Amino acid sequence: MQPSDTPLRPVTFHPEIPAIRYIVQTRLPEEYRVDSIATVNSLVDAIKCLDIRGAPALGVAGAYGVALATLTSTTSDPEIFQQEVSAAADLLRSTRPTAVNLFYGINRVLTVVKQEKTITSARDRAVSEAENVADEDSRTCHAIGEHGRKVLPLSCRILTHCNAGALACSEWGTALGVIRSAVQAGTLVQVYACETRPLLQGARLTAWELAQDGIDVTVITDSMAASLMRKGMIDLVVVGADRITGDAVFNKIGTYMHAICAHAHEIPFYVAAPFSTFDEESVEADIIVEERSRDEIAYFGGRRTIPDTVNVYNPAFDATPVSLVTGIITEHGIFTLPDDLAEIRAIRKRSLQQDHDISL
Amino acid sequence: MQPSDTPLRPVTFHPEIPAIRYIVQTRLPEEYRVDSIATVNSLVDAIKCLDIRGAPALGVAGAYGVALATLTSTTSDPEIFQQEVSAAADLLRSTRPTAVNLFYGINRVLTVVKQEKTITSARDRAVSEAENVADEDSRTCHAIGEHGRKVLPLSCRILTHCNAGALACSEWGTALGVIRSAVQAGTLVQVYACETRPLLQGARLTAWELAQDGIDVTVITDSMAASLMRKGMIDLVVVGADRITGDAVFNKIGTYMHAICAHAHEIPFYVAAPFSTFDEESVEADIIVEERSRDEIAYFGGRRTIPDTVNVYNPAFDATPVSLVTGIITEHGIFTLPDDLAEIRAIRKRSLQQDHDISL
Repeated sequence: MQPSDTPLRPVTFHPEIPAIRYIVQTRLPEEYRVDSIATVNSLVDAIKCLDIRGAPALGVAGAYGVALATLTSTTSDPEIFQQEVSAAADLLRSTRPTAVNLFYGINRVLTVVKQEKTITSARDRAVSEAENVADEDSRTCHAIGEHGRKVLPLSCRILTHCNAGALACSEWGTALGVIRSAVQAGTLVQVYACETRPLLQGARLTAWELAQDGIDVTVITDSMAASLMRKGMIDLVVVGADRITGDAVFNKIGTYMHAICAHAHEIPFYVAAPFSTFDEESVEADIIVEERSRDEIAYFGGRRTIPDTVNVYNPAFDATPVSLVTGIITEHGIFTLPDDLAEIRAIRKRSLQQDHDISL
Repeated sequence: MQPSDTPLRPVTFHPEIPAIRYIVQTRLPEEYRVDSIATVNSLVDAIKCLDIRGAPALGVAGAYGVALATLTSTTSDPEIFQQEVSAAADLLRSTRPTAVNLFYGINRVLTVVKQEKTITSARDRAVSEAENVADEDSRTCHAIGEHGRKVLPLSCRILTHCNAGALACSEWGTALGVIRSAVQAGTLVQVYACETRPLLQGARLTAWELAQDGIDVTVITDSMAASLMRKGMIDLVVVGADRITGDAVFNKIGTYMHAICAHAHEIPFYVAAPFSTFDEESVEADIIVEERSRDEIAYFGGRRTIPDTVNVYNPAFDATPVSLVTGIITEHGIFTLPDDLAEIRAIRKRSLQQDHDISL
């Protein structure tokens, strides 16, 4: 069991070994286990099998992965070194196509590596930049929490889907960051966590991490949410996001259904996500939605649930049109699309410029 | 594996033993097993643990159960006999509070038993009436199928939830009866079966029985339905019902969510159910919705999915207001509520009168 007096960080970097340590999320809640990996290939496996998951955490893992690649390279030729690190970045990018934060984290570190002439300086910059990505994510989540908590009534019942918590970030969480900040500020919160089929991140991860913090949480199946809304048991919905285009929020499959049902019951529907989730120059149709394996639905706990001859369709994410979203809670405040698109673009441009200035 | 050339009957009665045989539905699709029970107590257990389930099948099981009670009674005193059979009926009624068909099946047989003076004649009438209930249910399902198939386009993609199939009835099915009748009449049908959490009746049962009939079926999680609707992959929704009051359709949890989403996408939403499902003099607020055990959500295939300290809420059914229902497909045609309430009442009155006439 995770000691409750230290902030929950699902992925940490240990350059002196070098290694990445991570909470094996597929084992929760049965077992709290921290594994250590020493190669980019192992990191790729851990991301693909969802031992490490959650959009912002993937950004951190991607950043750490590129930094790890700089430390594990054995060449003394700077050109071959650069090629090896770029190949590692490509491999990491290929793991999950939908979460844009993964690409952001990878690119942040790769950019500084490319600016360096020597292997030693590239390693130093990579390690430092990867830690920046992680630390910024923590600060970002706390800022999201502060902005978000202000829209909650003093006592409220919140529905959430999947896990947009500490386990999905560097720490604190996005959707659960809003809940944590609200609880910290004295808001009386009751959380309904949708179990989130097929991989039960809501039941296994959201319920686990909220229970660790002593926050009142009840698990329901995804299909119960609408019925609870009709009974007046939900005041507000808050979820995370894997990518936000100019017209749609991509998040765990099931999010769209909650958005429609919230709209039908006139319940506010918020998305909590860092600016690194924005892909505001793209539109929904541009985005590839990852389809995951049949077995995620056809088996559970070793038991077969579907006859072998039957088809399964298993998209990992869905798209919620921005018209159904009450507000997008970010580290820079709360925005609505398409109204605030120009402002979002301006902030993104400014922060990219800052990144560039810092890098130089 | 069930031989595919005989009609699938989930519950059968064998008065010569006497015994009730049933397909153990909780074991599907891993194992096709038929168990035999010789007492009402065993039947009560089989219903409670959902080895036997589905509203019309519960009606048949209830009827068989009362008939079984007449055969297993060892008294020679007609008054004690009547008391014993009534007690068995009470016990059967206590198993599942929401499905009205259960009460219908029990009461049909109990009524004829009460009319008889001798134990022998009561047994004969009970066995015969119980078989009537089962045979009528088969004919009813075929009639529902015939009425329902006419509203389907010549080629269509149908979403269904839970199992309103042969396994839920005497044979053929209600929602799946519509699909079977359509396929038989040459309609090109593609079915999307929602897996139906927590007990996966859609994945385990609907997929199994449609695959047995060679009907194209794809399993999705409940949370994917809205996304498929948005992508234009669903032409029509058809589900069963456990009870239909004057203002709402009670059916497996998740039905309401599909109804809202279908409405939002202007997709027809049909309910297929026999007249014995109507409870048209009641309203939604009168009905007790069964809450089932925590473990149905907290464990799966022997694996714990939720921390032990976390609450679970597990209502078995939800209520869909009739305003979201395009039509209720019955053995007497297709009705809408509240418009056709007077006609439904008139048909119910007529058929109750017929039952009474036959009984005399």
